[in-house]
Amino acid sequence: MKIGFLGLGGMGAGMAANLIRGGHQVHLWNRSPAALEPLLALGGLAAADPVAAFDADVVISMLADDTATRAVLLDSGALDSARPGLIHLSMATLSVALIGELAERHRQRDLAFIAAPVFGRTDVAEAGKLNILAAGPAEAIAEVQPLLDLMGQKTWPLGDEPLSAAAVKIAGNFMIASAIEAMGEASALAKGFGVEPAQLLEIMGSTLFNAPVYRNYGALIAEQRYEPAAFRLVLGLKDVGLALAAGQSRHVPLPFASVLRDNLLEAVAQGDGERDWAALAQVAMRRSGQA
Amino acid sequence: MKIGFLGLGGMGAGMAANLIRGGHQVHLWNRSPAALEPLLALGGLAAADPVAAFDADVVISMLADDTATRAVLLDSGALDSARPGLIHLSMATLSVALIGELAERHRQRDLAFIAAPVFGRTDVAEAGKLNILAAGPAEAIAEVQPLLDLMGQKTWPLGDEPLSAAAVKIAGNFMIASAIEAMGEASALAKGFGVEPAQLLEIMGSTLFNAPVYRNYGALIAEQRYEPAAFRLVLGLKDVGLALAAGQSRHVPLPFASVLRDNLLEAVAQGDGERDWAALAQVAMRRSGQA
Amino acid sequence: MKIGFLGLGGMGAGMAANLIRGGHQVHLWNRSPAALEPLLALGGLAAADPVAAFDADVVISMLADDTATRAVLLDSGALDSARPGLIHLSMATLSVALIGELAERHRQRDLAFIAAPVFGRTDVAEAGKLNILAAGPAEAIAEVQPLLDLMGQKTWPLGDEPLSAAAVKIAGNFMIASAIEAMGEASALAKGFGVEPAQLLEIMGSTLFNAPVYRNYGALIAEQRYEPAAFRLVLGLKDVGLALAAGQSRHVPLPFASVLRDNLLEAVAQGDGERDWAALAQVAMRRSGQA
Amino acid sequence: MKIGFLGLGGMGAGMAANLIRGGHQVHLWNRSPAALEPLLALGGLAAADPVAAFDADVVISMLADDTATRAVLLDSGALDSARPGLIHLSMATLSVALIGELAERHRQRDLAFIAAPVFGRTDVAEAGKLNILAAGPAEAIAEVQPLLDLMGQKTWPLGDEPLSAAAVKIAGNFMIASAIEAMGEASALAKGFGVEPAQLLEIMGSTLFNAPVYRNYGALIAEQRYEPAAFRLVLGLKDVGLALAAGQSRHVPLPFASVLRDNLLEAVAQGDGERDWAALAQVAMRRSGQA
Repeated sequence: MKIGFLGLGGMGAGMAANLIRGGHQVHLWNRSPAALEPLLALGGLAAADPVAAFDADVVISMLADDTATRAVLLDSGALDSARPGLIHLSMATLSVALIGELAERHRQRDLAFIAAPVFGRTDVAEAGKLNILAAGPAEAIAEVQPLLDLMGQKTWPLGDEPLSAAAVKIAGNFMIASAIEAMGEASALAKGFGVEPAQLLEIMGSTLFNAPVYRNYGALIAEQRYEPAAFRLVLGLKDVGLALAAGQSRHVPLPFASVLRDNLLEAVAQGDGERDWAALAQVAMRRSGQA
Repeated sequence: MKIGFLGLGGMGAGMAANLIRGGHQVHLWNRSPAALEPLLALGGLAAADPVAAFDADVVISMLADDTATRAVLLDSGALDSARPGLIHLSMATLSVALIGELAERHRQRDLAFIAAPVFGRTDVAEAGKLNILAAGPAEAIAEVQPLLDLMGQKTWPLGDEPLSAAAVKIAGNFMIASAIEAMGEASALAKGFGVEPAQLLEIMGSTLFNAPVYRNYGALIAEQRYEPAAFRLVLGLKDVGLALAAGQSRHVPLPFASVLRDNLLEAVAQGDGERDWAALAQVAMRRSGQA
Repeated sequence: MKIGFLGLGGMGAGMAANLIRGGHQVHLWNRSPAALEPLLALGGLAAADPVAAFDADVVISMLADDTATRAVLLDSGALDSARPGLIHLSMATLSVALIGELAERHRQRDLAFIAAPVFGRTDVAEAGKLNILAAGPAEAIAEVQPLLDLMGQKTWPLGDEPLSAAAVKIAGNFMIASAIEAMGEASALAKGFGVEPAQLLEIMGSTLFNAPVYRNYGALIAEQRYEPAAFRLVLGLKDVGLALAAGQSRHVPLPFASVLRDNLLEAVAQGDGERDWAALAQVAMRRSGQA
Repeated sequence: MKIGFLGLGGMGAGMAANLIRGGHQVHLWNRSPAALEPLLALGGLAAADPVAAFDADVVISMLADDTATRAVLLDSGALDSARPGLIHLSMATLSVALIGELAERHRQRDLAFIAAPVFGRTDVAEAGKLNILAAGPAEAIAEVQPLLDLMGQKTWPLGDEPLSAAAVKIAGNFMIASAIEAMGEASALAKGFGVEPAQLLEIMGSTLFNAPVYRNYGALIAEQRYEPAAFRLVLGLKDVGLALAAGQSRHVPLPFASVLRDNLLEAVAQGDGERDWAALAQVAMRRSGQA
């Protein structure tokens, strides 16, 4: 099976490496070619451009956002060059609008389109332990399952409508952002009574909230360790925007997401945009005069 | 050690039972005496009134709220009747204002006051597996530690200022309410794209949010199983009010808590006040026309 | 007609002066007696205590808040000393809970209770140009109408249920606070594009929003003239709290009021509590890094 | 002076009519040609397409939104066909992003670009009484001032940067939406205490809020007269979206706008999208179970 892989940022590089290590022939493309080097060393092959990468049985795209995806897949002519029968696995976090548009374009051209966004940061991608949400034609998913198994610890099937996977990914990221904000506000409240956030967050993270999101982000907040950023706050703002836009398209008000948008925006205005999005917790501290 | 125990609702009854089973002489008082019966059968003793219950070495109060606590401990004259040296364990979820006032009153009368609110519902109380937050004089806490060990799986020490335990308890409940709201909004968003909340919540609750709060409330939301109520929504509204009041006293804005207040109020207006507070998730469904 | 007047702050002093100038015998009481001096010079009479002030045909109370009203009218025994037939005009901005309780107490003692809160600041009170909301027994209102006419430019009748006047006053203050916040956010938005708030607010205040609230507060915001305070921000926070509490008692969510509460609290935390409540507009400026 | 006019909806038709009546030669274009008929009867001339309308000294565009503006001005090639020196008056309410892009494109082609959005509904447009915000090159504005005077009662100059006028227009619409929401919440609160919204809104609209926005929308809310729509709620949702997007581009959080977005979305989900945007007030009524 000949694989094209577009988008070799922190996430994509780890995922592609696991495919190469799994014995696959992977044709790599990235806007900045420097990212290819370590993967070529592993046995990957360079594709000259997006069109070349689409000369494959399976194409995986893991581009930064809607704009990059649109530029690389559509404006470049890559998708239009694809031969019927090709399976395209879109693994980035994209807007429901773009996923809907992509699904339609693939349908028209008789290509199989699978939305397969993932949960997990770069270290998880490198370890091949992502949680993968997959929605698209059942046979196509079955065919790429060996690839998904190389990249993830588990694939969560979400039916044949790609939008379903996109919606769950967006809803999940919204839940993470909400957890960070809740920890931030709770920490500011506790601190108002002389309790260190570390104490509060350790208690909650050891009991009722004994889950990765609370333990990991709780530690960052407790230590105010916002650099280096594992996930930049401006990207969190983008993702909350995806939730708001998805909600708007279906008339679903999301008051927590609205608070998150405003608070992330404030964090950016206050200079925290390039720090880890756990820095959202600083907003509550600053507002209460405790930062 | 002679123990007085005031307040034998669902939580108090389970806690008192564990003390009695642990071999302690427990003098019980409850506004409605019927609640005493099963405990008397276990070997508990009836106290004629709050003053009688305060004729003890250690008094534990687990009354419904500020109003009940004020009536039973203060207006009844019980606290004023206490002999110097008595240790009072206040285990209910009370306002920081009342905890502050109680701490001051105990100080004036040379009584040891420990705020020791708990996490866990009635089944956890019965099993003696509560998580107990304890703040107050260190020697007093050491003295009652055997009692705390009978009621809880773990005691989390929070220093000698009772307000600290009250603040953490209130902050923790706010975090639970926030988790419910986030699940509710995320579910409404997913459903807008044809994904059943059960699917979304199972994926999230098995991975990043693999913690009791998300698994337990997630199941209730997924099944819309809001009756019988393990914790009534009106009590949740009361607890969010405690967070807002605590925040206000220290000038800590809590925008998530404000959203929670408004949404819980809407739930009450729509008839869900006596259902489990997981029914908060219905607000997002109704608003988006999906309930 | 013998009049008792309790509460001679900025508002009360102006109102009492107009009654005295109107030829009435006014028995004055204030917590701090210094406030009486200018009024005695006008011909007012000093009452020794609240009970003495209640030895009258009509009593007007204009105390700072619930706490002061409760202390002066109830705890002092003044209300209990009133003779049947007395008419009590409560003109302060009080909680619906206290107005309800006062109405009930008056009913039990056969006293006429009129809630008559006012719109207008101290200069308007001095000029006798207040807008007065009046709700209570119709005959009692008719009897005190000459007094209301001395204090206000217009009396707005709101039926015989005192709560109605209290609710309208609270709703009106909430509308003012909302107007300030809207101007503050709009100003921050305009400034983000290089437009001075003064320009925006002059255009809006000269056209669609050509009303006292927008012109007056608009000017304060445009000039960032927050001192001296005509109405202190902490009192605005109190009034928004009255709206939230009133809403809660009737299960009416008020999301704008929730935003106002959080933002006013932030303003207090940032040191603006004693400035004019137009300083609420600074919150939006600070958050966006433009203050 | 040869004038091209694109976009003859309710607003554009009234504005173009006033130009024709003022003796100008106006070349008209509209997507649906039926809208031209009454204007041709007044002496207007038909332009075959957008390019033909741009064969003029001054072009006025009053198209529905960003999408229509982009299609008609850019995709059609009309702007690219314009001869140097042409003055383009963009009078629609557009996003700051599109205004910025248009300004840049005009600069590149040596065309004068004036953003001149207006306040006023269709009846005001017909009467030539609009309030016009104008920002762009001073000489160009001076040149078209006679045209602006035919369409509006007053032109508010906002300097030479087109974005300034766009920002003020967007901020102003946000203020109107906020006023509607505040009246809606205040009405729900009053009604909870048995006070008819009509009473509350008449009192406030006659005193502190004696301005067109409050009197006009107050009457609609008081009478629940949401049809026919003078301005459809879905357009209000669009305009609040413009405010949020403008704020986001400058890192200005707008919590009131966030509440408005969520509530307008709920109104759409509940079936009020095609009613007048005063129907936003129904959201508060419904939530509190009073609709």
